[in-house]
Amino acid sequence: MSHNTFGHMFRVTTFGESHGVALGCVVDGCPSRIPLTADEIQRDLDRRRPGQSKYTTQRQEPDQVKILSGVMEHDGRQVTTGTPIALLIENTDQRSKDYSEIKDKFRPGHADFTYEAKYGLRDYRGGGRSSARETAARVAAGAVARKIIPDVTVRAALVQMGPHKIDRANWDWDEVGRNPFFCPDKAKAEFFADYLDDIRKNGSSIGAVVEVVAEGVPAGWGAPIYGKLDSDLAAALMSINAVKGVEIGAGFGAAELHGEDNADEMRSSSSNVGNDGPVFLSNHAGGILGGISTGQAVVARFAVKPTSSILTPRRTIDRSGADTDILTKGRHDPCVGIRAVPVGEAMMACVLADHFLRHRGQAGS
Amino acid sequence: MSHNTFGHMFRVTTFGESHGVALGCVVDGCPSRIPLTADEIQRDLDRRRPGQSKYTTQRQEPDQVKILSGVMEHDGRQVTTGTPIALLIENTDQRSKDYSEIKDKFRPGHADFTYEAKYGLRDYRGGGRSSARETAARVAAGAVARKIIPDVTVRAALVQMGPHKIDRANWDWDEVGRNPFFCPDKAKAEFFADYLDDIRKNGSSIGAVVEVVAEGVPAGWGAPIYGKLDSDLAAALMSINAVKGVEIGAGFGAAELHGEDNADEMRSSSSNVGNDGPVFLSNHAGGILGGISTGQAVVARFAVKPTSSILTPRRTIDRSGADTDILTKGRHDPCVGIRAVPVGEAMMACVLADHFLRHRGQAGS
Amino acid sequence: MSHNTFGHMFRVTTFGESHGVALGCVVDGCPSRIPLTADEIQRDLDRRRPGQSKYTTQRQEPDQVKILSGVMEHDGRQVTTGTPIALLIENTDQRSKDYSEIKDKFRPGHADFTYEAKYGLRDYRGGGRSSARETAARVAAGAVARKIIPDVTVRAALVQMGPHKIDRANWDWDEVGRNPFFCPDKAKAEFFADYLDDIRKNGSSIGAVVEVVAEGVPAGWGAPIYGKLDSDLAAALMSINAVKGVEIGAGFGAAELHGEDNADEMRSSSSNVGNDGPVFLSNHAGGILGGISTGQAVVARFAVKPTSSILTPRRTIDRSGADTDILTKGRHDPCVGIRAVPVGEAMMACVLADHFLRHRGQAGS
Amino acid sequence: MSHNTFGHMFRVTTFGESHGVALGCVVDGCPSRIPLTADEIQRDLDRRRPGQSKYTTQRQEPDQVKILSGVMEHDGRQVTTGTPIALLIENTDQRSKDYSEIKDKFRPGHADFTYEAKYGLRDYRGGGRSSARETAARVAAGAVARKIIPDVTVRAALVQMGPHKIDRANWDWDEVGRNPFFCPDKAKAEFFADYLDDIRKNGSSIGAVVEVVAEGVPAGWGAPIYGKLDSDLAAALMSINAVKGVEIGAGFGAAELHGEDNADEMRSSSSNVGNDGPVFLSNHAGGILGGISTGQAVVARFAVKPTSSILTPRRTIDRSGADTDILTKGRHDPCVGIRAVPVGEAMMACVLADHFLRHRGQAGS
Repeated sequence: MSHNTFGHMFRVTTFGESHGVALGCVVDGCPSRIPLTADEIQRDLDRRRPGQSKYTTQRQEPDQVKILSGVMEHDGRQVTTGTPIALLIENTDQRSKDYSEIKDKFRPGHADFTYEAKYGLRDYRGGGRSSARETAARVAAGAVARKIIPDVTVRAALVQMGPHKIDRANWDWDEVGRNPFFCPDKAKAEFFADYLDDIRKNGSSIGAVVEVVAEGVPAGWGAPIYGKLDSDLAAALMSINAVKGVEIGAGFGAAELHGEDNADEMRSSSSNVGNDGPVFLSNHAGGILGGISTGQAVVARFAVKPTSSILTPRRTIDRSGADTDILTKGRHDPCVGIRAVPVGEAMMACVLADHFLRHRGQAGS
Repeated sequence: MSHNTFGHMFRVTTFGESHGVALGCVVDGCPSRIPLTADEIQRDLDRRRPGQSKYTTQRQEPDQVKILSGVMEHDGRQVTTGTPIALLIENTDQRSKDYSEIKDKFRPGHADFTYEAKYGLRDYRGGGRSSARETAARVAAGAVARKIIPDVTVRAALVQMGPHKIDRANWDWDEVGRNPFFCPDKAKAEFFADYLDDIRKNGSSIGAVVEVVAEGVPAGWGAPIYGKLDSDLAAALMSINAVKGVEIGAGFGAAELHGEDNADEMRSSSSNVGNDGPVFLSNHAGGILGGISTGQAVVARFAVKPTSSILTPRRTIDRSGADTDILTKGRHDPCVGIRAVPVGEAMMACVLADHFLRHRGQAGS
Repeated sequence: MSHNTFGHMFRVTTFGESHGVALGCVVDGCPSRIPLTADEIQRDLDRRRPGQSKYTTQRQEPDQVKILSGVMEHDGRQVTTGTPIALLIENTDQRSKDYSEIKDKFRPGHADFTYEAKYGLRDYRGGGRSSARETAARVAAGAVARKIIPDVTVRAALVQMGPHKIDRANWDWDEVGRNPFFCPDKAKAEFFADYLDDIRKNGSSIGAVVEVVAEGVPAGWGAPIYGKLDSDLAAALMSINAVKGVEIGAGFGAAELHGEDNADEMRSSSSNVGNDGPVFLSNHAGGILGGISTGQAVVARFAVKPTSSILTPRRTIDRSGADTDILTKGRHDPCVGIRAVPVGEAMMACVLADHFLRHRGQAGS
Repeated sequence: MSHNTFGHMFRVTTFGESHGVALGCVVDGCPSRIPLTADEIQRDLDRRRPGQSKYTTQRQEPDQVKILSGVMEHDGRQVTTGTPIALLIENTDQRSKDYSEIKDKFRPGHADFTYEAKYGLRDYRGGGRSSARETAARVAAGAVARKIIPDVTVRAALVQMGPHKIDRANWDWDEVGRNPFFCPDKAKAEFFADYLDDIRKNGSSIGAVVEVVAEGVPAGWGAPIYGKLDSDLAAALMSINAVKGVEIGAGFGAAELHGEDNADEMRSSSSNVGNDGPVFLSNHAGGILGGISTGQAVVARFAVKPTSSILTPRRTIDRSGADTDILTKGRHDPCVGIRAVPVGEAMMACVLADHFLRHRGQAGS
């Protein structure tokens, strides 16, 4: 069972609500003697942190992480001990507000009705457990995961906002850190600035697509059938709030291809360092064949729906079942896909760290 | 760990290779006293069975299922006992052929290279464990799953082949059983007949998109965060051979929507039978919000890449690392997405049966 | 994988070391709307708390528990929400002491050498993760478990210290709370007072046996083969620090019995309330047959070895592999079996809560 | 969830009833390229096989194992492929007999009543799923496990029958294979011959204690807290039919010891080969400290209750709840502990193989 846990050998269990005392996670299965400081985790958290531009929620949360367990000083630096690493992030800006509006009405597009249907109650304060704040715990766990697979580089970028896709010819990873959209296409980022500002001012919101790329994954990670690397990636990325689709490599585009256009051809490479693998002439597979990594970059994309909290009145019902309208005030992301970028990286990192350990267990290296 | 097992309370473990003695599965966690006969399972298997039209592989496999355990006569009919149900399907048409061509060459688009990279060997006979024959075990398990949730109807259909999408205005579930493509649009099915025949004759192959719909799922199944119904569906569907993308409801289309267009509005329904839920005015959510079912139809789609076994020579390397070409003769599906239709149904049924039992465990009904 | 997690539907993940910032646990899978306050958890923690008599370690830890997540006000009281309940206990009395003695020497009977062998390092401060302080998290989780199965009463008692067994004719559950040994035999408790005081003054320690009894468990919980109630109890109790043996019902005594003496006979009971089960004429089975509860009291016992931290010098080696001696000063329990009593209760409660939910999932009630 | 599965990286799922078509298991997670033939598995099965002496059930089952999947010819010998190994054992001697007696009566000491309470029915033919025949699947899986850890020798022996313990001074492993009791004490085996014959002739049965010893386990396998090697051994051994107690090393005897007598002292060993570990001067720990192996022999014991199927009439109730008597005719083991010896070995081997892979995953070697 895995309601709030994911991973197998590298396991993450998260807890906490939007407006509770704190949120966090327990990372289990991490190898010992891996250097790890709170600062390294903080660096990733700071990228996800809200309130950093007008394009994300104005909630002010420092998202300061504390390591409660699982590390110690050893040979002059702080390292993991091999035991559970508990990470805690206290909530500080649970603005006291009037929840009477949403307490008794189900917000369309939110999990309000479904929580009520399942549990007979729901934490109406800021979305409770379904708040995007939960993703801070993922990012913290992802920072630990990265330390386990130091030869793998996991990066993500926003590649589409609304119907507007980036120009892949302009892809520049360095650009991702320079604009508030995590967009690798400088020109498109400038376009998004005005585009999203209009949406924000209209009290509306918009969807997005995020691409996650892992370089340096050797051939052989993953497993056939139900432990497929792509199957685990699909679960991990689909578990992020507001995600409605996941694809690997050519993804849905593969449905339109003929066999001779889709299958990635191979050539020998005498210069190939490390795994004696072939040089692939394309990467429609997204670095995964039969659920196992090929040695190419692992490429996944996920679609994020528009924030359902908008300033336009919407038809709904209240807890008594009566028709009513609702308008969601408050601090919201006009494009929640933006802050999903570091979350996507974190989930990819966690899945890869898990499969690295699983592969090493079964295959010995 | 779940290399060859999926599900939690309703668990399926599969085994077997394309050219081994037999394949099958063990279904664990099934409630007791559910009527179950081999004939019922056979009915679903027969829909997936190869060799039924010129559009699927000509391998002749009766795919006769035997129930080895977990059922007994009780009150005049055969029912489950609550213990593991082992299902066995013997392979009969492992045509003895010359494998020397593929034994030492890596077929592009297949898992040949990755298996070799992971395991140091691979079963080159018909794809071994990665053969689509493994999906027979899924379909058998899915037939058991359906019996656990008799009020839920799970159906799937092929909605796109290559770039050609069906006309949704023509959707007729009855049509799905009348054409060899499981296509709900009669006109498009007629088009596919010629279209795919050309592809087949050219020794090529083509991708497809399959849609799976579950009706009758009450509100409340699923769980937040890592046990989300959509997260488990994504993993289950992505684990099917050749699948490269999964989406729920509006899916990737949601990335292009504004919040007011995406979030499904609700109205009261005095006539609502069963769960007192709202009437939703649309279903962009695909029946899932916050990982929990809404009571609407659960809708998922997955993209299937074109078969990589084609009659066109392709560049590759052999096991010694030298450049070579390969041309995959043999009995192959020109559009493997067709036979993925009953497989998609089976996976949806298994995930739902699992979540039904999990929900009943935590919530009591 | 379950290095630091136990349970399936009722899952507990613990974290924290003896001398770290804090320890705690995440309880996942708890049904919603169960009243739960920190005070209720504290009550159980206070029974396990050190420093309450001269017979337990003099470390002063208030062991104040905080609920970080998973509860909210509902209809006037604090209840569970169905989401993860994170419980935190801060360490306050990590006495700064000189660890140079044990930092480089392996204490016999402790996990010092094995941690070093596994992880290449160990947290030498107070036993790190293997400290008995970890059991505070179990007791906290057990308090939550009890709330899920309110009709079940789980109690434990110390039934043997060294070679001295209690007189079962004197068994009085009320006596358990009146003496510092959790002993149900008043006369034996008086004997233990002097007996253990002598051992303590001699700088020695002694083993013990604890019996855990759960009343009110209906027939039908558990599962055959690898999900047996007794199998899960064995794992749960054996996982407690210093436990070296677990038995159910007649236990090792059953090895000496003939079939006609061991198998519990049954008689009809028209007055039987609740489950229409038989009246059993004895309980050698300890309330479990075939891994499934019979409706009788579930009875388990476990053996706790003597504390290995004693004031007598012992032969060992240091990290360089050289012979040396060690004498463990500090604050230790002369009979760690005493404080294992509430821990045993907690583990039984957690296993039963888990099986209640699992049974309800598969069987529907 | 693990109703019929055990292990994590080395996972075994079993299926089948006493009187069904077949029983067997699926072994998942086995590394690739390990030589494995059916003959090797058969060798272990033959030791457990019934009908080999008058001291075990007279049911004649050849217990011929078939490997259905997961192996292939490679470099001239049959090896594992890394994919699931399905093992099948067909039932042949399901003697058609009159079950009317036990169909409607609950046999004392058997799982008849509890299965009925849980599932609303039970397979009354030979105990169904709870039959000791299920252990054949364990032995088959154990034979695979042994191949994964070839440097580890796992052996078991019967060390007590009824109140009669062996004389440990007489321990001779070679003797175990020479008498029908798997007893390492020749003199005691001779005594058991008459002792058990009397019990058998009287239509009675008797309990036993089995000791399992694994030599060659390096220091470092296992994990703290809930993945403890002893915790997993306890679960695995307690899951064997009729087992009522498990102990490690000094076990329940540790409860009677003082700290200075129990903790195993260490001395340096320049001659120590392999893991640079200490020489332990005793092994009260049974080779496990803090849940992690010490490098000494891992020693576990388990108590097996007497067979409940005896020829003496016993009081019970029938399915209608009315009082009645029952006398269990048929082919039964007068001391089921005897055939538990190879089963105990198998479970130890499986747990160790699992922990070897888990350790290699986390620690890298």
